[in-house]
Amino acid sequence: MEELKTWLALARVPGFHAASQDSLLERHLRWLEHPAHHFLRRGSPGYPPLLSNLPDAPTGLLVRGDPNALSLPQLAIVGSRNPTPAGHDIARQFAAQLARSGLTITSGLAIGIDAAAHRGAIEEGGKTVAVCGTGLDIDYPRANAALSEEVASSGALVSEFPLGTPASKSNFPRRNRIISGLSLGTLVVEAAVRSGSLITARLAGEQGREVFAVPGSIRNPLARGCHKLIRDGAQLVETPEDIFAQLGPLAATLALATPVATETADSAAVFSPALDKGYEILLDALGFEPASVDVLIARTGLKADEVASMLLILELEACIDACPGGLYVRRPVPG
Amino acid sequence: MEELKTWLALARVPGFHAASQDSLLERHLRWLEHPAHHFLRRGSPGYPPLLSNLPDAPTGLLVRGDPNALSLPQLAIVGSRNPTPAGHDIARQFAAQLARSGLTITSGLAIGIDAAAHRGAIEEGGKTVAVCGTGLDIDYPRANAALSEEVASSGALVSEFPLGTPASKSNFPRRNRIISGLSLGTLVVEAAVRSGSLITARLAGEQGREVFAVPGSIRNPLARGCHKLIRDGAQLVETPEDIFAQLGPLAATLALATPVATETADSAAVFSPALDKGYEILLDALGFEPASVDVLIARTGLKADEVASMLLILELEACIDACPGGLYVRRPVPG
Repeated sequence: MEELKTWLALARVPGFHAASQDSLLERHLRWLEHPAHHFLRRGSPGYPPLLSNLPDAPTGLLVRGDPNALSLPQLAIVGSRNPTPAGHDIARQFAAQLARSGLTITSGLAIGIDAAAHRGAIEEGGKTVAVCGTGLDIDYPRANAALSEEVASSGALVSEFPLGTPASKSNFPRRNRIISGLSLGTLVVEAAVRSGSLITARLAGEQGREVFAVPGSIRNPLARGCHKLIRDGAQLVETPEDIFAQLGPLAATLALATPVATETADSAAVFSPALDKGYEILLDALGFEPASVDVLIARTGLKADEVASMLLILELEACIDACPGGLYVRRPVPG
Repeated sequence: MEELKTWLALARVPGFHAASQDSLLERHLRWLEHPAHHFLRRGSPGYPPLLSNLPDAPTGLLVRGDPNALSLPQLAIVGSRNPTPAGHDIARQFAAQLARSGLTITSGLAIGIDAAAHRGAIEEGGKTVAVCGTGLDIDYPRANAALSEEVASSGALVSEFPLGTPASKSNFPRRNRIISGLSLGTLVVEAAVRSGSLITARLAGEQGREVFAVPGSIRNPLARGCHKLIRDGAQLVETPEDIFAQLGPLAATLALATPVATETADSAAVFSPALDKGYEILLDALGFEPASVDVLIARTGLKADEVASMLLILELEACIDACPGGLYVRRPVPG
C-alpha cells in the first residue's frame, strides 16, 4: 500500500485534481480488489523487462487483464485514426499473422489502425496489449468500449496514469513511449507526417528498438508519414514475414529470458491474500532479512511466477517491502 | 567514313547478318544523308559527356533528331510495360513537371511507363530522348511508331545498333546502360522485381548515378521492384520536387559546362579528336590539394565551361571529390 501511495503522490497528471490523496488511495485499493486488476511497481519482478530498461520508465503501472502479457515479446502496431480501407485491412492482417507467429500485438486502443491491430490479434486467438492514455476506469475512446473488454481477456490494458485520469492531449505522446518501450519493434501503418504514430516511431528509434513502416501510393496522404520514416532509416515492410524475420530471433531470446507463467491467468491464484495459506508460507519463508525471488522459490517450492505474483500482492498489502537488488523484506508486524 | 566503317565492323549484333559490309556501309551512308540523321563517334565533341567516360560506352551512336539533346541534363524514367493507370499517370506527370523544370526525359520507347514518360515531356514542350534497342530504321515497338516521330522532333532517338538490327531479347539490357549512362539519375515508376527497369536502376547505381523509386501500395505487385530498390538504397520519391532538389544543382553545372553547339547538328562536324588528353591535364593540374575552378582554369588554360564539364565527369567517375567552398580535390589512386 505504501508503494501505491508513493506512486499516487508522485503521479502528477494534468487535468487530475484529487480532492484528497486518501480517497484516491481508497479508490485504487477498491479497484485492485478485482482479481483481474493489478499494480506493477518498477523494480518488481512482474514489471515488463523491456520497459524497465528505459530511463523514463513509469514508476508504476495499473494493469487490467493478465500482467504477464506485458512481458511477452511484443510488436507495436500504430497508425492513423482515419485510415483508408486498405490501411485498416493491412493492420488487421499483419496483426493476425504476427499474433499467430507468437508475437503479442501492442497498440494504443485508438480508433482506426490501433483498433484494427488489436482486433486482428484477438481474432487469431493471439495476445494483445493496449496502452491507455487515461485511467483504466475511464472508457476512452467510447467507440472501443467493447474492444477494451476483449483486450482485457486476450492480454492486458495498461496505464501509467491513476484511475480517474481523463483523456488529455498531453498524455498521449507520453503514453506512446510505453507502446514502443514494451515492444521489440514498432510498425507504422498509414500515418500523417505530423502524427502521434510518428512520435511513437521516433521514440522506438531512440529506445534502440526496430522501426518498420508500410509504404503506400504517393497519392495516399497517409502514406507520407511512413515514407518519411523509411527515408529516415525505418525498414520498409511489404509482408508480415519481413517483420518476423527481424524480430523472430529477438523474440525467442526474450521468451527464454522471461519466465512467463500462463498459470497465473487463473485469477483465483492471486485472489485475496488474507485467505490463502500460500501467502503465509511465503511470508514465513521471507522473514525479516532481505531475500531474493530465487531464494524464496527454493525455500517454498512455489513456482517463479507464483512467487512474483504473490510478492506483488504482499507489496500492495504493505506486508513486505521491495529493496534494491531485487530483494524483498517482511515488514515488522505492528504492535 | 572510315570511322563509320570501323564501327560497323566492330558492331557485333546478335541476329544481324549483313550480306556484305560494303552494302551495310552504303545503307548507313544513305541514311546519314538525311539532315536529321547523325553518327556520333566516342571521343568526338558531340558525343554525350556523361556517357563518354563509362568503361563500356558505345563506340558509336546513330541519332535521329537533335544530337545536342544527348548532352543536356537528363533524368531517365523507366518502368513496367503494363503499369497500373496510376503508375502511367505518375510517369507522365513526373516527366511533364521535370521537363518543365529543364530536365530532358530519357527512356526506352517501350510501351507503358516509357511511353508515358516520353509523352509527358513532349506535352510540356520539353525535351526527350529515346534509347532504342533496335536499329533506328526499325519501327519497334509498332505501337509507338507515332510517338517515335514526336520524340525525333522533341529531342532525339539514339541507338548503338546498326541499321537493320531487329528486336532481340539480349539487346535490351545492353541498351539500358545507355539510358542510365546518359542520365544524371534514373527514376523507376512501377516495376516487377525481375525486370529490365531494375537492371537499368542497378546500372545507374554502378555508374555512380542517382537512383530514385516511387513507392506504392504493398498490394500492387508492380511496387515490389521499387520497394526492393528503396531497401537497397534508392531514394524514395513522392514528388517531382524530390528529384529536382537532388538533380537541379548537378543539372545546372552540366548545362553551364556542356558546350551545346548547334553547329554539331551538321554530322560532319562531330568527327574530331578526342578530349581524353584534356582530362589528364586537368587531373595533373588538380593534384591532391583542394583547388577552385578559377585556379584550374589558370593552371590549364582550359575554358571555364570545359573545366566545369570535365569536373562533373571526373566527379561522377569518382576520380575527384567536391569539397566545401567550391573546391575540388583528386582522389588517391587505389593501390
